[in-house]
Amino acid sequence: MPVLSHTALSELMCSMFVKAGAPPDEARVVSDHLIESSLMGHDSHGVWRAPGYAKGMRRGVSPASNYEIVKETPATRVIDAKGGLGIVAAYRAMEGAVEKARTRTFGAVGVHRCGHCGRIGAFPVIAAREGMLGLCFLNGGARFTAPFGGTSRRLPPNPLAVAFPRRAGDPVVLDITTSVVAGGKIQVKQARGEKLPEGWMIDAEGKGVDDPERFMKDAAVLPLGGFQFGHKGFGLGLVIEALAGGLTWAGCSSEKPTRGASGFLAMAIHIQDFIPLTDFEQEIERLVEWVKSSDRLPGVSEILMPGEIEQRAREQRLREGIYVDDRTWKEMGETARELGVETPG
Amino acid sequence: MPVLSHTALSELMCSMFVKAGAPPDEARVVSDHLIESSLMGHDSHGVWRAPGYAKGMRRGVSPASNYEIVKETPATRVIDAKGGLGIVAAYRAMEGAVEKARTRTFGAVGVHRCGHCGRIGAFPVIAAREGMLGLCFLNGGARFTAPFGGTSRRLPPNPLAVAFPRRAGDPVVLDITTSVVAGGKIQVKQARGEKLPEGWMIDAEGKGVDDPERFMKDAAVLPLGGFQFGHKGFGLGLVIEALAGGLTWAGCSSEKPTRGASGFLAMAIHIQDFIPLTDFEQEIERLVEWVKSSDRLPGVSEILMPGEIEQRAREQRLREGIYVDDRTWKEMGETARELGVETPG
Repeated sequence: MPVLSHTALSELMCSMFVKAGAPPDEARVVSDHLIESSLMGHDSHGVWRAPGYAKGMRRGVSPASNYEIVKETPATRVIDAKGGLGIVAAYRAMEGAVEKARTRTFGAVGVHRCGHCGRIGAFPVIAAREGMLGLCFLNGGARFTAPFGGTSRRLPPNPLAVAFPRRAGDPVVLDITTSVVAGGKIQVKQARGEKLPEGWMIDAEGKGVDDPERFMKDAAVLPLGGFQFGHKGFGLGLVIEALAGGLTWAGCSSEKPTRGASGFLAMAIHIQDFIPLTDFEQEIERLVEWVKSSDRLPGVSEILMPGEIEQRAREQRLREGIYVDDRTWKEMGETARELGVETPG
Repeated sequence: MPVLSHTALSELMCSMFVKAGAPPDEARVVSDHLIESSLMGHDSHGVWRAPGYAKGMRRGVSPASNYEIVKETPATRVIDAKGGLGIVAAYRAMEGAVEKARTRTFGAVGVHRCGHCGRIGAFPVIAAREGMLGLCFLNGGARFTAPFGGTSRRLPPNPLAVAFPRRAGDPVVLDITTSVVAGGKIQVKQARGEKLPEGWMIDAEGKGVDDPERFMKDAAVLPLGGFQFGHKGFGLGLVIEALAGGLTWAGCSSEKPTRGASGFLAMAIHIQDFIPLTDFEQEIERLVEWVKSSDRLPGVSEILMPGEIEQRAREQRLREGIYVDDRTWKEMGETARELGVETPG
């Protein structure tokens, strides 16, 4: 169970991706993205993904330059990524949305036919750093979430991520799935041989399932809100289908989605066209103070804003290094050897 | 416990509002809105509100024509409603957003200093009927929701409503709070003398509270997701603070909000600037078929899309009339008498 510096790990991943066939600049973007996720404590979207990404690249990478704009207006763009790397496509989409919002208040760029988009919380923060609200929506991945009242696997986890600036401190960054949990959280339990807590998965009769091995088989994940309030998570998941599946041309979840579904939509809103940015940031700061002044549940030492726990993990791991579990490290080593890349340590 | 036709109830409310001082056209808008809410089964936002609204109007109504535009760009507008009726202001905001979206793809109108906005699911459907995605956000009302990890009353229920068209059938309309329940649901339990289910409210130590009488006193409502996943509902509530409180000039929730908080933001997105409307509607239709094909929990006869239960209630109540509980009917009678309006039946 090695603990490695983020620089060593990043170099290793970048070398692996280049050897696997990714253009060097894209390999760098993806390895930096994965390292940031691991630094922030989101191991399920970090280094753990590297062997899988490298294997995918070996099967062939469509360079990012290969994309096609299928629709464009002053405030919108829809891109066919033609199988290009999702993380690269998502950064480009967010940057495009920010550029459009600069002159049109709102900007939105949709992408279809791209690979795995990584940790979507990484993208809206680009808008927040430019004095904008950033919003990202994704309808991709395995369709393992049950509709409210149902027991079958129907919707992907359908995450959304939103970021906005505050006066003091890093932007607020919310990054959540509309299912109770992301698939990665279940896979982490699986890797550790742990049972699932109550309220995560159900079987065809609606009974709780605590065995993570059944995740990709016969069990369905509940929508956010569970048995009592799951109409809310289900409804939010459908809204994300409309935004990320409908608007991007990717297609909504269905028996056989139009373009494979898995669409990504990045949106930016220029705050200054509503209110001076400093006034907005001041309001957020007052909000932060107000919620942090709340009394706390036993055992809770502080009320955290979305994104704060990640910032703290990042500071710690920058100092202390990133812990990579044995299983992932073994897989990294095997994949690196196959690619002829030397592993550190 | 009278059951009345929607036309008789609507006339009664409209007469009451006019006698209470509302301009006749605005009295009509508000009474129609309340009737629609009752028809759709949302009694907490329907006729039940009429006596309170009438009393508020008697204390003085700022006519809708009295509003001021404090900021305008081609895609945005921010309105100071100067204490005008919230429902009237919200319709105007949504219509303004639709007009702007027609030429700019996106349109957004924010409102501050307005009264109670009613059932916010009523507004985005205006955009959906024009081939747009409609989104509404509200940060108003009593701040009774605890932050994740906290036990104090900090955020309002912070609802959002989203509507979009489908090929066959009425638009999909999601209308949810980011707290586990809206305040009205607790007040309905209170009126009926019922206990609250588990997972709705907590006390200062985080213990469950089942007594609805403590709702506006010492208990706090949990954020959507509860103890396990409440960071999601809390985070969504904060996003709505940024949109409805920050962008509209209303102010975010805080010890003493800038302009009283209670901001309303209406947004419209012109679908055709991303994808032909018929293609979008076809995608939503395929999505509907897919989720409805799910196996169901015991006792569930059908998977319903957001808004369907309301449409069915509406059809039934149009035929059978609207049931008004004794307490509300008594209050209606008293308020009507005070205003010199005759009650039917």
